[in-house]
Amino acid sequence: MPVRDFSADHRWLSINTATVRAQWPLDRIIDECAARDIRAISPWRDQVAAVGLQRVAAQLRDTGIELSGYCRGGMFPGIDNAARQAALDDNRRAVDEAKTLNAACLVLVVGSLPGALAGAPAHKDIAAARNDVRDGIAATLDYARSVGMPLAIEPLHPMYAADRACVNTLEQALDLCDALDPPRSGALEGRERAALGVAVDVYHVWWDPKLEAQIARAGRDRLLAFHVCDWLVPTRDLLNDRGMMGDGVIDIPRIRAWVEAAGFAGYSEVEIFSAENWWRRPGGEVLDTCVARHRSAV
Amino acid sequence: MPVRDFSADHRWLSINTATVRAQWPLDRIIDECAARDIRAISPWRDQVAAVGLQRVAAQLRDTGIELSGYCRGGMFPGIDNAARQAALDDNRRAVDEAKTLNAACLVLVVGSLPGALAGAPAHKDIAAARNDVRDGIAATLDYARSVGMPLAIEPLHPMYAADRACVNTLEQALDLCDALDPPRSGALEGRERAALGVAVDVYHVWWDPKLEAQIARAGRDRLLAFHVCDWLVPTRDLLNDRGMMGDGVIDIPRIRAWVEAAGFAGYSEVEIFSAENWWRRPGGEVLDTCVARHRSAV
Repeated sequence: MPVRDFSADHRWLSINTATVRAQWPLDRIIDECAARDIRAISPWRDQVAAVGLQRVAAQLRDTGIELSGYCRGGMFPGIDNAARQAALDDNRRAVDEAKTLNAACLVLVVGSLPGALAGAPAHKDIAAARNDVRDGIAATLDYARSVGMPLAIEPLHPMYAADRACVNTLEQALDLCDALDPPRSGALEGRERAALGVAVDVYHVWWDPKLEAQIARAGRDRLLAFHVCDWLVPTRDLLNDRGMMGDGVIDIPRIRAWVEAAGFAGYSEVEIFSAENWWRRPGGEVLDTCVARHRSAV
Repeated sequence: MPVRDFSADHRWLSINTATVRAQWPLDRIIDECAARDIRAISPWRDQVAAVGLQRVAAQLRDTGIELSGYCRGGMFPGIDNAARQAALDDNRRAVDEAKTLNAACLVLVVGSLPGALAGAPAHKDIAAARNDVRDGIAATLDYARSVGMPLAIEPLHPMYAADRACVNTLEQALDLCDALDPPRSGALEGRERAALGVAVDVYHVWWDPKLEAQIARAGRDRLLAFHVCDWLVPTRDLLNDRGMMGDGVIDIPRIRAWVEAAGFAGYSEVEIFSAENWWRRPGGEVLDTCVARHRSAV
């Protein structure tokens, strides 16, 4: 099966709305995407909350824009049972919101050492954090199955292992999927996709020597989302120095060929955190560049 | 076998001389280490060249300080045959220098996309870079075997995959070792260690969910060096914001227990790049802190 040709149009482009979060609120982002015939977005919970869940749902219906994913659930580890239960409650709300917005999946950034994101890690036991993550996904999956919302574990780059996610390779994410949602169980129930899968973001996984093999292992059932941006050299900040597709060193077409060979046929979602560059440019210029690079560099 | 007790003395402390490179030239570093009964160092080639190879060799003999490793060979990928041959020639010189200084091993930082370190990557083909690395190590290994200098592949953190090293996990490094230097070949020849092994730096590998298993796989033959520092939260710079042992989130004693259980009984080498903190403090304070933390946090 040949790779889909993206050069002639942008029908498979999705915009993760963090890409222009510095410029516009979500309602404006949706209008600007609609004006450019962008058919999908992936919004963040805080952006939805700022506009209002029902208002966003109505705007999506009016514009016909769909959600390639919803950002985000996760952050499961906690210092005690109360903290872990609070995380589960919050994930249940995230599943409900994703369902209201008819998202293709809820993306999970699973969390890691409690307190680390605030600069005050409560302990150094990443194995314990991984246990919390396994248990948290298991509990959330029960609820997500009941409402029919697929969960997509997003392995994050190892440079985020302390504070954002202790799932750091595609292999590790797929091992979790197989443990909590045995292979083909989704297919056996007649669903299009597994209840639990992965979000493959090239920024997080491009370096992995096992990437091609693990994408093939994931297959169509587990590949719930595909995110693109680029790795700049030099990278000046661990979080907010992502590049526009084509400006860095990731061979994005090669990775897209692998996910499509595995059966993925969904959106290519652009997610760029860029404090010193793209967040400082006019939002329209950023979206227009995303469209152009989707055609030329994805 | 119980883990060695480091709390009472620092006989197994080694100082990677980059840790105080901003403060002192190498001859002064050696004297300051000797004055503190530090028995081993691991110097960098530029530091040795600045003082003079023979002069450093003589100073090491006079002080009785030994080399836990020599930094560094590698940087094998090149844009053409001439560039790759130049890298091989340079690695041969590095092997010779390591031999002159009687180093325990030559550490290999293998390189990645040509030009990326200078901010101008010549291509995006990390698989090609990995092929160059395999071929470069194979060629260097032939020479290193002939003079009896073990080569230690250092897997670097994936955030260095573009510009410094395209070997990014211990598993990947050990796969290379097994391909180029089949298991037990070193032992069969009666040597203490394999001709090709790994340098395990906790900073680069602490996040890896397969770390414990891969350390066990490495075993005594392949574990040629053990480096320590700490991962700070937040980390403000990709290269030069390493922490002193105990100031970050790496469970160093746990990882040391794994390498010792696998048979490693060598030095624990402190290597800290810290532009905003430790490189700004008096060198004596840095070394004294290394001694104290070696006892309390390693």
